[in-house]
Amino acid sequence: MSKNCIVAQSGGPTSAINASLAGVMDECRKSGCYDKIYGAIHGIQGVMERNFIELNALCNDQDIDDLSHTPTMYIGSCRYKLPDVDAEPEAYEKLFGIFEEMNIGAFFYIGGNDSMDTVAKLSAYAEKVGSEIRFAGVPKTIDNDLMGTDHTPGYGSAAKFIATSMLEISYDTYIYNAPCVTIVEIMGRNAGWLTAAAALSRNDYINTPQLVYLPEAVFDMDTFIEDVRECLKQSRNVVVAVSEGIHDKDGNYISAVAAKEDKFGHAQLSGVGKTLELEVKERLGVKCRSIEFNILQRCAGHIASATDINESMMLGRAAVKLTAMGHTGFMTALKRYEGEEEYSCYVDEAKLSEVANKEKQVPAEWINEKGNNVTDELIEYIKPLIKGEITVGYKDGLPAYLPIPHLTDH
Amino acid sequence: MSKNCIVAQSGGPTSAINASLAGVMDECRKSGCYDKIYGAIHGIQGVMERNFIELNALCNDQDIDDLSHTPTMYIGSCRYKLPDVDAEPEAYEKLFGIFEEMNIGAFFYIGGNDSMDTVAKLSAYAEKVGSEIRFAGVPKTIDNDLMGTDHTPGYGSAAKFIATSMLEISYDTYIYNAPCVTIVEIMGRNAGWLTAAAALSRNDYINTPQLVYLPEAVFDMDTFIEDVRECLKQSRNVVVAVSEGIHDKDGNYISAVAAKEDKFGHAQLSGVGKTLELEVKERLGVKCRSIEFNILQRCAGHIASATDINESMMLGRAAVKLTAMGHTGFMTALKRYEGEEEYSCYVDEAKLSEVANKEKQVPAEWINEKGNNVTDELIEYIKPLIKGEITVGYKDGLPAYLPIPHLTDH
Repeated sequence: MSKNCIVAQSGGPTSAINASLAGVMDECRKSGCYDKIYGAIHGIQGVMERNFIELNALCNDQDIDDLSHTPTMYIGSCRYKLPDVDAEPEAYEKLFGIFEEMNIGAFFYIGGNDSMDTVAKLSAYAEKVGSEIRFAGVPKTIDNDLMGTDHTPGYGSAAKFIATSMLEISYDTYIYNAPCVTIVEIMGRNAGWLTAAAALSRNDYINTPQLVYLPEAVFDMDTFIEDVRECLKQSRNVVVAVSEGIHDKDGNYISAVAAKEDKFGHAQLSGVGKTLELEVKERLGVKCRSIEFNILQRCAGHIASATDINESMMLGRAAVKLTAMGHTGFMTALKRYEGEEEYSCYVDEAKLSEVANKEKQVPAEWINEKGNNVTDELIEYIKPLIKGEITVGYKDGLPAYLPIPHLTDH
Repeated sequence: MSKNCIVAQSGGPTSAINASLAGVMDECRKSGCYDKIYGAIHGIQGVMERNFIELNALCNDQDIDDLSHTPTMYIGSCRYKLPDVDAEPEAYEKLFGIFEEMNIGAFFYIGGNDSMDTVAKLSAYAEKVGSEIRFAGVPKTIDNDLMGTDHTPGYGSAAKFIATSMLEISYDTYIYNAPCVTIVEIMGRNAGWLTAAAALSRNDYINTPQLVYLPEAVFDMDTFIEDVRECLKQSRNVVVAVSEGIHDKDGNYISAVAAKEDKFGHAQLSGVGKTLELEVKERLGVKCRSIEFNILQRCAGHIASATDINESMMLGRAAVKLTAMGHTGFMTALKRYEGEEEYSCYVDEAKLSEVANKEKQVPAEWINEKGNNVTDELIEYIKPLIKGEITVGYKDGLPAYLPIPHLTDH
């Protein structure tokens, strides 16, 4: 008798994580590896609570295609880290009881490094108790900070939104004939991959952003002000891309330093962009504004990267194929063909122990010596990942994403 | 001998203002009404400084099409109000001297109500001195606050960005299974047209944003907190759209009230979104975030409305046709066919005296009684304006907008 499978999503959303879900579903449909495909609503918590949606009804060309273009998480998310088996064996007993009851042959978890920790724990437990259920992780995060993969699904689409918006901001900021500084705050608390993507907006006639500050380099406010002053000598229009996670030599976040000075003690009062804006205004007396991309950078599905969407599907498909071949306890990963003229990637398996609970930062050699810009090598690494546009259907002027009535109140 | 013309742009940028410029250029090319087309760089200031770019070189199908899809202002902008003729007659003498020298037959100014004031002053002066130069205004503003036209070019594209982003935010915020309030701050200091567009993201399964606050209604913080508390009883996911310009019953901006409490006295420290976020956190103890669309709502050309782009071109074309017929001292305007099944507009002329220095607000009957939502009539008014998608070319994953080397430093 054919087995069933469970698929779940976890962590922060991206524009491409549903493409991995679509890949899992499409491969199940085409290969017949698994019979029923259960989507656990709200990640592993959905399994615990027996909260499932049967996905087989969506296994047709139109829905699979729509799903692959629908941003964020079709079956919901959770932020839940499975306890250690020694601390709470009953959680594992309960989960495996449910798996057995539902005749599960494989479990696919699409997520970041916390989710890979869950996959590692489940597969270790399966080995211990002699279960034949296979466990596979499929990577995703806009932050691109996962080890074991050339880059992460979701990163390319976020990078495309960032580079496009930076280009449009340059068109907006160049129109006036007066000096102006624009500071753009970009996500990535510990890794600067997203902020680095801002540099892709430069071209033959646009040199903004002139300054790019990643969290991997120490940030010094006085040096920053001098950097801006220098740029204003060259150009009336200075644009700065800055990671939310920049910190001083002692490791204090720049935003937190500013927030301390506030009498309410609200750390959230000043984002780093606003903090730098006020410093520039006070110390340079020049017009300055700050912009925060906020969650738009992770959910703007209408401007997703086709490269990213295709690779995300590929990683979902591969997870199904590999478990069907008997593999378990791995994460599907992207490897870039080296030394080729044209960019392309193939799918490999990464060891969960190399991925779980780890973070990949931008290497020091991809940041310039002054710590205020990225190197050409870093730009070349990102460039192919934002290429290609997807064809989103529109209805009444809005993207026709797959409806999510099972997540909403209606 | 055929006359030449000048075209200029002024005020804040939109995604559609270059489509009006493209309309002027294309009509000149096709009709042969005017010989040389001079673009004044940085608005009327560019005329004063004899800073022109000859646009005839761009009068081919490809460039006209690219220009119509390029956001913000291809020939730059200014924020300059022409002095009264009695106060500074020499400014007018200089301008008309330049017009004569350049053999100008018509002047086209694409802008908002300040720009229409300039057109009114120039055409009044022309009449006074017996000049035959014709002056035409072409409307634009994302704010939709111009009198004399059904809606303004640029509004539909900004509304499409806002509605699309609100839809994507709903997909982002529904994924977690915990109560959360999201506050989105939208442009429009005195008019709520842009904020109202947030309501277009509602559909059969999504009811966010549940609350919409326009500057036309008085805002009361206690009532707001009760509104949010009520919504949280119905839904774990509450989204609020709020205009940057909301104010209390005494006319004080909510953002300014909060800023006063800051020991630095920085009015810019707290936007209204951040102010409401802190109130919700403190008084309701629920997870809350705020998002500000900032300038992206006026420059995101990649998601422009085809209806908006087409109408903007149409208004530029009509300005050329009407001046060629001898008309002067008017603004081209959109009139909606009433009582038709399908939405459509035709071009009319508006009197400058009805437009210049005036603002059109959202009528009271299009806001609900509680002042926390918009009516279906308002939604129906906006709906057709965001329809249709444009085909932006992409190069290396980024929109291939028309290069602007004449505005940049390179």
